[in-house]
Amino acid sequence: MAATSFDRLVEEMQRPPFHNWLMPIARGVDDERREVVVALPFRPDLSLSPDQPIFHGGVLAALIDIVGHAAAAVWHGAPSPTIALQIDFLRPAIATELLAKAILRQLGRTVSRVDVEIGDGNKAFVLGRGTFLTRGSET
Amino acid sequence: MAATSFDRLVEEMQRPPFHNWLMPIARGVDDERREVVVALPFRPDLSLSPDQPIFHGGVLAALIDIVGHAAAAVWHGAPSPTIALQIDFLRPAIATELLAKAILRQLGRTVSRVDVEIGDGNKAFVLGRGTFLTRGSET
Amino acid sequence: MAATSFDRLVEEMQRPPFHNWLMPIARGVDDERREVVVALPFRPDLSLSPDQPIFHGGVLAALIDIVGHAAAAVWHGAPSPTIALQIDFLRPAIATELLAKAILRQLGRTVSRVDVEIGDGNKAFVLGRGTFLTRGSET
Amino acid sequence: MAATSFDRLVEEMQRPPFHNWLMPIARGVDDERREVVVALPFRPDLSLSPDQPIFHGGVLAALIDIVGHAAAAVWHGAPSPTIALQIDFLRPAIATELLAKAILRQLGRTVSRVDVEIGDGNKAFVLGRGTFLTRGSET
Repeated sequence: MAATSFDRLVEEMQRPPFHNWLMPIARGVDDERREVVVALPFRPDLSLSPDQPIFHGGVLAALIDIVGHAAAAVWHGAPSPTIALQIDFLRPAIATELLAKAILRQLGRTVSRVDVEIGDGNKAFVLGRGTFLTRGSET
Repeated sequence: MAATSFDRLVEEMQRPPFHNWLMPIARGVDDERREVVVALPFRPDLSLSPDQPIFHGGVLAALIDIVGHAAAAVWHGAPSPTIALQIDFLRPAIATELLAKAILRQLGRTVSRVDVEIGDGNKAFVLGRGTFLTRGSET
Repeated sequence: MAATSFDRLVEEMQRPPFHNWLMPIARGVDDERREVVVALPFRPDLSLSPDQPIFHGGVLAALIDIVGHAAAAVWHGAPSPTIALQIDFLRPAIATELLAKAILRQLGRTVSRVDVEIGDGNKAFVLGRGTFLTRGSET
Repeated sequence: MAATSFDRLVEEMQRPPFHNWLMPIARGVDDERREVVVALPFRPDLSLSPDQPIFHGGVLAALIDIVGHAAAAVWHGAPSPTIALQIDFLRPAIATELLAKAILRQLGRTVSRVDVEIGDGNKAFVLGRGTFLTRGSET
């Protein structure tokens, strides 16, 4: 039986050892829109502050990379190393769970482009845009 | 006795709970060049691959944020929330220890700009550039 | 009589001497979505090539700056100097007229964020994202 | 007789029709550092303001594209279409002549990376970083 896009997203979230620590959760895939959704519940070791449940910017940046790569890899059907990321922080990420949506804007022969938005399902905390390699594995 | 720039860098590396997991190490400060150096030893849970000692791109992105912020905060003398990051991945980060150098390019009244380079002390793996807020704490 | 958003967009397109050469045309404003639309007809002196009607990347970059700034300035009600631009080129911009849409994603007390897309009304040629200053006029 | 790097830079500055209007001037090439220098004298039609000799941000963005591409193309030995640009504006570009330096940071099999700095020879007005395609001509 062929792997579905959701199977591929689940696998993307599991393979790298770093993900076993971060524990992003595959939440959904929309093949029409070429969009993936990943969740990340808050834990104290993801925090910027000892006093407030606010996600650290470094965690948000890592999540942009992971979810952007997932959107590129799911529809490319192979790993797509990250070439570049642009990350814009709009407001403090205070939430019990992050929702990260990544939409594949372009699947080219050499590079792919992905737009990522991290929020709480209501408002955006961070906007990301990434370029991923689709041709060969070397940059 | 007044805190030195190196004291401030050490404090930057320790405060957020996320850093207690990542464990970046304050390595040096150059007040003249307004440059900080931070090290991050390899560990399996920072890895992209179960088979190879290669740092995950998300870890590199998080380190760009942390070290860039540190350079902005040390010379601003106060927290400088990250507004935006640009991260360019040049080659796979295979090393037993990362060295991240951040140089404060501009300390403005509203924003600061920082250039970051992560490598093994010899060649660069990742280039980063960040914008940090210096005025008030809201974006 | 108060100036409308469209009046302000028209004024934005006219004031700087550089615009008198480029000649971008205010096409529309959507106050609900906080979106502006600007057109730029092809001319040979905007071209990348002596043989083909393809807009030069530098012209596209300039248009991202102009239209992004316009969206920030129209709803800020004052000039909003550009702090940073990110520009992603998806495909050659072969068209008789460019349509640039800019949507204000955040109007903050210190900075604004704007998403820009340049295309032919059908497909996108370039994606842009900009950060603009809303507080004071110095960076 | 083989074309030198400087010949190639001169040619880069001349070919596209848009350059015939902008008129950037090839100033120098350093083969060792893989660096090119291009000048752009002030003219009123490049201005942001009718009252002050200040270069328009769109002109600066266009120059980043042109000079970054030139550094990539000179050492690649072929056109290298721009994939992405990041542009950081540090301060108003008030000068009688801009000097733009671009240094090729990586010449890869698929993409190149170039750092660009525009200033007056003394202080920087704008920092740029670009990714250029080296493999095939399609993105």
